[in-house]
Amino acid sequence: MEKIKVGVLGCTGAVGQKLVSLLGRHPFFEISELVASEKSAGMKYAERTSWREASPMPGYVRDIVIKSPCEELDARILFSGLDASVAGEIESDYAGRGYAVVSNSRNHRMDEFVPLVIPEVNGSHIAMVRDQETYKKSGGFIVTNPNCSTIVLALALYPIYRDFGVDKAMVTTMQAISGGGYPGVPSMDILGNVVPHISGEEQKMETELLKIFGSYDGNHVSNADITVSASCNRVPVRDGHTMSVSFSTCREATSEDLIKSLCSYEDLELNLSPDQVVAYMDDPARPQPLLDSATGGGMTVTVGNLRKCPVLGWKFNAFGHNTVRGAAGAAILNAELLVKEGFV
Amino acid sequence: MEKIKVGVLGCTGAVGQKLVSLLGRHPFFEISELVASEKSAGMKYAERTSWREASPMPGYVRDIVIKSPCEELDARILFSGLDASVAGEIESDYAGRGYAVVSNSRNHRMDEFVPLVIPEVNGSHIAMVRDQETYKKSGGFIVTNPNCSTIVLALALYPIYRDFGVDKAMVTTMQAISGGGYPGVPSMDILGNVVPHISGEEQKMETELLKIFGSYDGNHVSNADITVSASCNRVPVRDGHTMSVSFSTCREATSEDLIKSLCSYEDLELNLSPDQVVAYMDDPARPQPLLDSATGGGMTVTVGNLRKCPVLGWKFNAFGHNTVRGAAGAAILNAELLVKEGFV
Amino acid sequence: MEKIKVGVLGCTGAVGQKLVSLLGRHPFFEISELVASEKSAGMKYAERTSWREASPMPGYVRDIVIKSPCEELDARILFSGLDASVAGEIESDYAGRGYAVVSNSRNHRMDEFVPLVIPEVNGSHIAMVRDQETYKKSGGFIVTNPNCSTIVLALALYPIYRDFGVDKAMVTTMQAISGGGYPGVPSMDILGNVVPHISGEEQKMETELLKIFGSYDGNHVSNADITVSASCNRVPVRDGHTMSVSFSTCREATSEDLIKSLCSYEDLELNLSPDQVVAYMDDPARPQPLLDSATGGGMTVTVGNLRKCPVLGWKFNAFGHNTVRGAAGAAILNAELLVKEGFV
Amino acid sequence: MEKIKVGVLGCTGAVGQKLVSLLGRHPFFEISELVASEKSAGMKYAERTSWREASPMPGYVRDIVIKSPCEELDARILFSGLDASVAGEIESDYAGRGYAVVSNSRNHRMDEFVPLVIPEVNGSHIAMVRDQETYKKSGGFIVTNPNCSTIVLALALYPIYRDFGVDKAMVTTMQAISGGGYPGVPSMDILGNVVPHISGEEQKMETELLKIFGSYDGNHVSNADITVSASCNRVPVRDGHTMSVSFSTCREATSEDLIKSLCSYEDLELNLSPDQVVAYMDDPARPQPLLDSATGGGMTVTVGNLRKCPVLGWKFNAFGHNTVRGAAGAAILNAELLVKEGFV
Repeated sequence: MEKIKVGVLGCTGAVGQKLVSLLGRHPFFEISELVASEKSAGMKYAERTSWREASPMPGYVRDIVIKSPCEELDARILFSGLDASVAGEIESDYAGRGYAVVSNSRNHRMDEFVPLVIPEVNGSHIAMVRDQETYKKSGGFIVTNPNCSTIVLALALYPIYRDFGVDKAMVTTMQAISGGGYPGVPSMDILGNVVPHISGEEQKMETELLKIFGSYDGNHVSNADITVSASCNRVPVRDGHTMSVSFSTCREATSEDLIKSLCSYEDLELNLSPDQVVAYMDDPARPQPLLDSATGGGMTVTVGNLRKCPVLGWKFNAFGHNTVRGAAGAAILNAELLVKEGFV
Repeated sequence: MEKIKVGVLGCTGAVGQKLVSLLGRHPFFEISELVASEKSAGMKYAERTSWREASPMPGYVRDIVIKSPCEELDARILFSGLDASVAGEIESDYAGRGYAVVSNSRNHRMDEFVPLVIPEVNGSHIAMVRDQETYKKSGGFIVTNPNCSTIVLALALYPIYRDFGVDKAMVTTMQAISGGGYPGVPSMDILGNVVPHISGEEQKMETELLKIFGSYDGNHVSNADITVSASCNRVPVRDGHTMSVSFSTCREATSEDLIKSLCSYEDLELNLSPDQVVAYMDDPARPQPLLDSATGGGMTVTVGNLRKCPVLGWKFNAFGHNTVRGAAGAAILNAELLVKEGFV
Repeated sequence: MEKIKVGVLGCTGAVGQKLVSLLGRHPFFEISELVASEKSAGMKYAERTSWREASPMPGYVRDIVIKSPCEELDARILFSGLDASVAGEIESDYAGRGYAVVSNSRNHRMDEFVPLVIPEVNGSHIAMVRDQETYKKSGGFIVTNPNCSTIVLALALYPIYRDFGVDKAMVTTMQAISGGGYPGVPSMDILGNVVPHISGEEQKMETELLKIFGSYDGNHVSNADITVSASCNRVPVRDGHTMSVSFSTCREATSEDLIKSLCSYEDLELNLSPDQVVAYMDDPARPQPLLDSATGGGMTVTVGNLRKCPVLGWKFNAFGHNTVRGAAGAAILNAELLVKEGFV
Repeated sequence: MEKIKVGVLGCTGAVGQKLVSLLGRHPFFEISELVASEKSAGMKYAERTSWREASPMPGYVRDIVIKSPCEELDARILFSGLDASVAGEIESDYAGRGYAVVSNSRNHRMDEFVPLVIPEVNGSHIAMVRDQETYKKSGGFIVTNPNCSTIVLALALYPIYRDFGVDKAMVTTMQAISGGGYPGVPSMDILGNVVPHISGEEQKMETELLKIFGSYDGNHVSNADITVSASCNRVPVRDGHTMSVSFSTCREATSEDLIKSLCSYEDLELNLSPDQVVAYMDDPARPQPLLDSATGGGMTVTVGNLRKCPVLGWKFNAFGHNTVRGAAGAAILNAELLVKEGFV
């Protein structure tokens, strides 16, 4: 199989570097283009980028010359790790010119015909791209993945939502600093501290989940009938968002029922989808960032300590890797789904 | 006013050291006795104790010779920072011998006639000591303060409970390592990590609050009609427990009503009670351990970011210093109330 | 004694806030003016400043309207916490207009007639101001304190240098993040990490010490004949620089001699100078940032674990609070010396 | 090639787990025996061990029943991660019974005929085992690797020592918490702190290096003529020891000479020896624990910022992974050398 050429928009940033790192060893995607802001354009990737990934920069991208956001690109899929301040227009522009834009940015997530997709949860929504104006004209379109925290919550709740119904969910997050990008959170703010506020994060969790769990009739997505309350906190952890989650189910279930449900994801046979989409751990002190962020190569969401919640019925701990499952890996998984479903 | 002689049980431990530190500069308590386990008995306090408080050890206690738990003591009040594995019997023993035992340990908190007291919340409960068997025989009794997390939650919720009623509350805690004592939490477990489990902590929060908010008719405490759900996490913070709290009120209120209520604690004129029992902060990113743990000398609970909760109605952030307001300071405040009310 | 009016240049930054915090409770200095960049000018201090000190902002400065760097000021002494990128010119300008400028910035430290002073070490150097051009014309002048790391090293070595001679010193620093200001060091760089490089820091330590220990003949300072090698590292500590120091003495000494020397600072009777300028600790695991940064209100340098160094003869651990003894407190101490010596 | 059966002594501890983790995927070693203290004996490894490695426990060891230290073992090589309090006797006992004991413990390191080996540095020393009493009687013997800090220093200095001579070296370490095992360093001691003392560590560094760099004439090792001074500090870093190193060379060299020398390790063709034994980095802010601990699978020592030292001539930063290159990986590499040289 010939590899599919892909580009990375916002290639020098934190999400961009993670995309390059994961795509650099991907079996059927090949990075052919790298795009960053004007001031980086014209320079070689290795020269311009202050590489911060633990694994070395993929050799073949070192000499790729960075292009600026307006340029024509030799690539079929464009992964966007652009900052929200510029992502909206640039992504629309490229979609209008026929590219498949797979975005991690928040700008278009709630647009009417833009799929907000987690393949294992609502892969069918991907078909919405057919109704995008640009798709009809040029074949280009935009697909998005949810916010990093929403993805973890969605994966941890979805099987139970599907099997028993969930009408209310409350989540308190303890989020890693890598979610703030680089330079991101000042050390003076977070070393030995908790910051109980992340701008805009709670609203994203409270709204995005409704679209993801929504039913798609081939024309529109109807929001799911679930009420979500999120309280978001930043903690001095490098990678991975930990969550305390409470929820009420519509139909009765035992803890065995719920655990069985959690572990019942079917295999989508996508390259980056892990063996266990959700792994349940018996130890009440799990999951933890340090011990569980590498599970499934960072693509598995871990859940533990399912127990009764006196207020809502049930509660558990959930955890997921924010820059892999919650960002770069999420986008790549969406692209793999696009390939599988024949959209690229 | 002549100072009242007091002793500290468990004087070498983390809570014990904080008690010695706070009592060492107290206007009307004077440390006359220090008690620790057999293996410390007979040694001078300064020689035996690996002092870990930031302020220096009070000079006059340095040469006090540590006694063992069975010995007769020249003191009217005994503050107990004993480990729960031994506190139960030792405290009962001293109460039986006529001492006023003011305990931070969990063993007797839920005993029928043992007051579980936060002076600003349920100071009247202190009168329960009159019904303790030992009080009738020897004048001795036991008074307890709640668990550190419960105290912060209780102080942050009480005015609203009193003014508008609260029937459901959910709290997710992010607790400091000092709550685990010394050596306590291994660094390998918590550096750059979150541990989503603290043994027994959730149950304490879910039960103690009902007794504290309960009504006392002069004979018994009737538990308050409030359902509490707690999810407890350990985070890499040195001092102070941060909490995300959601709750539903029985009567309607605006956010202005609630903030006004929060700030309406009356002044009990106890030495260690701070000017502001609860301080409300407008900044949505407050309170934070680093910036707010010194407020009111560690005795003020800070609350911030009151906002609507889609599930329960309201939510806010709360914070309190776990070893001052939540432990040593709590016990000393209870002793001050005992003095004021004439029980010692 | 009427209070002396002082201004703070760079009042909103990290050093500026610490200056305001310490000056706000000073017995004979009174803040009358606050100066920051153009974009802050015209606003009240409390409105403009994101206050990050643990102690509350002094009440009387809250409503002071910030002025811009060119304005006339009603103050005798100007404390400068300005960034090095602008400090040079602004400080010279104010000195030329007759103000006593007491600076923490590096720009003028090595200027020929600018004293680089630590009162307990080389207070006599302060007389150099008389030879500044501006002093002769307007009475204005500039006095500087050394870099934070240099101050700690200088205080820890000086008594031994004075009593036994020191010809070589090697120091490896482990410096706190607060030395980088705010926002300063990104958390992604330092959480759970060591950064073995601080731009320009090693050179400052290797050169400033020679001027400080230099002899002043009333006209010039002759550099001390001591060779210093510094290796500077950033570590995830909030406040306080820890150092491993090795040195060789010119004359023989026992460890008792050296410890006695270390503790032999005479009392200068300056307000901010601590009872113990250097405190020696017997515990080989001291000093430590957490346990020793509050000693002497942050003005005491602590030394511990003096032992033989196979290469240079002796080694010990040293520690000092970088923003108090190493910056704001250092500047205020210099101003107190200026008052005592009649220069203001 | 049939795999060689190996056992792990002290299999449940921190070093033991790292040994099991690395050996579990080794191409020609196969774990056949696991040994721990009496209280673990008789239990299956997976049941008894609180596994803390990030990679999952190798499947085939899960059901191995742990044996106690006195038992007969079906293995040719025994890797020892035993605590120093018991390692001495147990290792001697097994050596006496014919086993090849490859130890990470300090007990026998300085014994006359026990090789203290880093294969890339002094692999020839391994032949010393022939002079061990037990070797002559039963074929059993003991081989040791140095202390974790010594290994990093030795690898970073050796090429320069070999090519230009080094007569003095000073090192200040900033060591990770994992060096203290589990539970090891209390979080109360190290979170946001530096502890400037690690018991016995400085002496190990100052003595072991002399034996490692010593010349072996086929009968004895003559200590190298180099003076080492070490100052050891614990910092809040999970894995990897960072060092500031100064040294003086016997013969003149340029920085290019030294860097070329550092990178001139020859390839020993041992499985675990990395492509680059030492990697030199141009960035003056490298190496860093977070960015460099995975280099060479944790087996590469990274060096950076070579520059002039005013006191000793040269200085650089060095870094190595303490539990891989400094402990478990070091022992396995020694065993690979034993196989290559025909000793097992």
